[in-house]
Formats: sequence, C-alpha cells, structure tokens
Amino acid sequence: MIAIDLNPALKPVAFLLGTWRGEGEGQYPTIKPFRYRGEIRFTHNGKAFIIYTQQTEAIDTGLPMHGEAGYLRLVGEGQVEFVIAQPIGFAEISLGQVSGRRIDVECTSVGRTPTAKPVTSISRSLWLDGETLRYQVKMGMEGAPLSQHLRASFHRLD
Amino acid sequence: MIAIDLNPALKPVAFLLGTWRGEGEGQYPTIKPFRYRGEIRFTHNGKAFIIYTQQTEAIDTGLPMHGEAGYLRLVGEGQVEFVIAQPIGFAEISLGQVSGRRIDVECTSVGRTPTAKPVTSISRSLWLDGETLRYQVKMGMEGAPLSQHLRASFHRLD
Repeated sequence: MIAIDLNPALKPVAFLLGTWRGEGEGQYPTIKPFRYRGEIRFTHNGKAFIIYTQQTEAIDTGLPMHGEAGYLRLVGEGQVEFVIAQPIGFAEISLGQVSGRRIDVECTSVGRTPTAKPVTSISRSLWLDGETLRYQVKMGMEGAPLSQHLRASFHRLD
Repeated sequence: MIAIDLNPALKPVAFLLGTWRGEGEGQYPTIKPFRYRGEIRFTHNGKAFIIYTQQTEAIDTGLPMHGEAGYLRLVGEGQVEFVIAQPIGFAEISLGQVSGRRIDVECTSVGRTPTAKPVTSISRSLWLDGETLRYQVKMGMEGAPLSQHLRASFHRLD
C-alpha cells in the first residue's frame, strides 16, 4: 500500500472520511415503515473526489437490504457533484454544496434501466452532528412527489 | 460474516465472481495510448445482481488512475442491465446479454455532471477466454463516434 496525501480540494469534506456504522428508518407513502442497520465507507485515493459505498442490512437477520456506490466530486467553491449507482437499476447525478459540516444535493438526472422502479428524483442531506453522522433522503417517483424516505445516524468505526 | 447462497439468477454470470488482477491498454483518437494495471472485483450478496468495482493504477508508479463501481443485474432470459458510476462525473445505464461466457452491453443513457467530459455512449464486452478474463470498452463523445478505448486481460486472484 502507498500512503496517499489527501487532495487539498477534499478538505471541506474530510470530516466524512472513514467507516461508519449506524441505524436508520425508512418510510414512503407506498410502503410499510422499516428500520435497518448499515455501514458507510468514505475513502479517497488522492484525487479530488471521495469514494462512497453504503450497505444496509436487516436488524433481525443481518441479511443485506440496500446497497449503493458512487463518488462525491469537489468541483470548487463548495460545489459538489454526487454520482451514485444503485443495484435496483438506477443511477443518480446530483449537484449541491458543502457548507460547514453539511452537504445537500439534489438530482439533476436519474438514469433507469427498463426494470427499475420509476424513481424520478432524489435529494440527500448529510451532516455531522457532534460525533454523529446523519443523513436524510427524500425520493420522488412517477405519480408521487419528493417525499421523506430515509433518515439514519452513524458513528465512526475508524 | 453470514455465508450467503448464490442467487439462482446469477448462475449464467457466476464465472465472473472473485478478484482479478491484470493489465490493459487504452487509446482514443484524442489521447496518447497508455497502459495500466488493475484489479476487478465481482461479488454478490444473495440478490440477483453482481457488485462490481474496478480500480486501475499506473504501471510505473502504482498511483491510482481510473475507478468505477456498479451493479450487473440479471433480469431473465440472458438479459443483463449494467449500472456503473464513474468518478469523472458520469453514470452509465447499459443493457445487453450474457451468452456462454461472454457479456455484451451498450449504453441506453449516460448521465453527466456539468464538469464531466462529454461522453455520450459506451459499449462494453467482457468474456472468459480459458482462465483469462478479457474486456473491451468502446466510447463515444460529443463530436466523436464510438471508438476503441480500452482492452485488458485479467487473471483470478481468488
């Protein structure tokens, strides 16, 4: 392994770096509310983006639920671009900003495979509250406006 | 860790599973040809998709070059959907098929951030040639038709 210095562009989001474990709750107008456990990893390789993965699992069985993977790009003056692939058949292109220890992004486009659910929009907020990393995800679907979907809090493992 | 059975839908692409190391060469009408080393991982979590990551590095310095992450969905009758996020600011939604030990997909959409290069199309082929995993990637950009871009061969580590 080569030790790689943090790209200076990443300083505003360096608070994300590491592995985080936590729990969350999901809801949507069309489904029964649910709870989950999860792990988030934010890593870097010296370039001006953060590598992101999240995997969630059922609290009772430990079986995998949702996963996603992508990249948070720092493109100057607090502006961020978030590209995320999801195994349920879609990919988000989102834009937003980092302000203090908080990142807010909104989709500018959602790419979907023919078998994906008709997700049309996603907004994500992610913020550090003391030592706790919290996020909130809102989702819109065909016929349903942007609505509260996920809320979770995580603690750093390393 | 919980041992998780392979989803039966993944049998046609089970030949991909594992970690692969290899080398490749890149070219494009607008750039100088280059070579790279890389690692590919295909894993699963019991669901009907394969989790994919690739990271490449410079042969001389070992420094990271390109990375990508996504999901290969098996959606029946040999049809596949490939969702891939790239840290250079775009996301591919590709469709295709698996036939024997070969997968061919073509983009149906490319989502891009405002700062991404104007990639408009990508086609990917991936096949097992004896014990060697080979891939080929063609890319089109605004003002440039789909052209040969990457060619690489990998051997299984585990």
